[in-house]
Amino acid sequence: MRVGGMAKGSGMIAPDMATMLSVITTDAAVAPEFLRQLLGAAVRRSFNCITVDGDMSTNDTVIVLANGASGAPLIEGGGEGADVFYAALEMVCRELARQIARDGEGATKLVSIRVGGARDEAEARQVGLSVANSNLVKTAVFGRDPNWGRILCAVGYAGVDIDPEQVAVSLCGTPIYGGGAGLGFDQDALIEAMGAEDIPIEIDLGQGPEQVEIFTCDFSYDYVRINAEYTT
Amino acid sequence: MRVGGMAKGSGMIAPDMATMLSVITTDAAVAPEFLRQLLGAAVRRSFNCITVDGDMSTNDTVIVLANGASGAPLIEGGGEGADVFYAALEMVCRELARQIARDGEGATKLVSIRVGGARDEAEARQVGLSVANSNLVKTAVFGRDPNWGRILCAVGYAGVDIDPEQVAVSLCGTPIYGGGAGLGFDQDALIEAMGAEDIPIEIDLGQGPEQVEIFTCDFSYDYVRINAEYTT
Repeated sequence: MRVGGMAKGSGMIAPDMATMLSVITTDAAVAPEFLRQLLGAAVRRSFNCITVDGDMSTNDTVIVLANGASGAPLIEGGGEGADVFYAALEMVCRELARQIARDGEGATKLVSIRVGGARDEAEARQVGLSVANSNLVKTAVFGRDPNWGRILCAVGYAGVDIDPEQVAVSLCGTPIYGGGAGLGFDQDALIEAMGAEDIPIEIDLGQGPEQVEIFTCDFSYDYVRINAEYTT
Repeated sequence: MRVGGMAKGSGMIAPDMATMLSVITTDAAVAPEFLRQLLGAAVRRSFNCITVDGDMSTNDTVIVLANGASGAPLIEGGGEGADVFYAALEMVCRELARQIARDGEGATKLVSIRVGGARDEAEARQVGLSVANSNLVKTAVFGRDPNWGRILCAVGYAGVDIDPEQVAVSLCGTPIYGGGAGLGFDQDALIEAMGAEDIPIEIDLGQGPEQVEIFTCDFSYDYVRINAEYTT
């Protein structure tokens, strides 16, 4: 049983996907209505977790095609086969989503924002998207600036009830904020670490068990060039 | 009776003002509680109508000081004196707000977005801020691209119930969208007109009597430079 996929992006990505076309294929046999449910769940955890500039697309598509050629038993509801298939489906969707974010206009880095410690998934998503859509955070990543103030600010204006004393933030694995204040860290080492192409930001809200991971990219001169010179 | 004012900005401006300090002075005599109400109304129509990059400030201040030195009668409630004073107060606040938006990081142009034909002010504001915070609209203004599609798209995802067939958009005084489609216009002349420092965008939602004017700036290479190089 195999799952493959391809996608094209990437302008106007903010949730609800993108000016994106994606086709996922599998040789599993899956009942159509159940497959639709699984795809919905996988999309919620992948394509709907990406943003480039906050501009939502007017049109996007993700399709899954299953032809049953593997000869594996029909998947038509919960169970082990469904769990294995869903895990593969979500993995493929998340990998495509990450690639789309990495391929954002003018992007030099993929930024993965994991928001944990939330009361529910919606709250985690709201905080993650607020940080992901902050131009100040995105330019700071481009400029390799370990600026916890900009991250905290976007957490604060996300519209979610949080307690800044309970929030913890780490950047490229280095704790930079906690207990209501910036933490001491080796600034030069962190700036060096921010030279990587993958920039993980971890935000723990400290008020619940739920988490979401949001993907975006940094914000460079080329974003401005591409979108100032392009005309339709 | 005179009203004066000064303000400093301008980073992190999105509604709820800015990392901004503003002091308004007047020699009118105004009862403190009434003055507070008038200032609130004026701020709603001015400082809270500006955005640079959608990043909200964590701290901002606007203060009004009235010393009564004009000798004019005390203003302590509605009436002609109050109307005249309020008009002057709002004019000063709006002028300062416009100056702050024009002075946004890397800005080369002031963009005034007038949203009319709304059912209520909240709806007009939501549409105006959606357009004002669209990086795609702001880079298009920087690049002098009369791109009605980006404007319409931001109107569409503002979260307000609109009918695209009823919406009309003009840019620098030239109608560019109406009746559900782009309109014919002299592209070269409009690109030429977009060379101005003041770019008016008018959006008529065609579904009510209310209107709001939102001020922002364009989005240039210098925005990225300033915010990628700056560190705290």
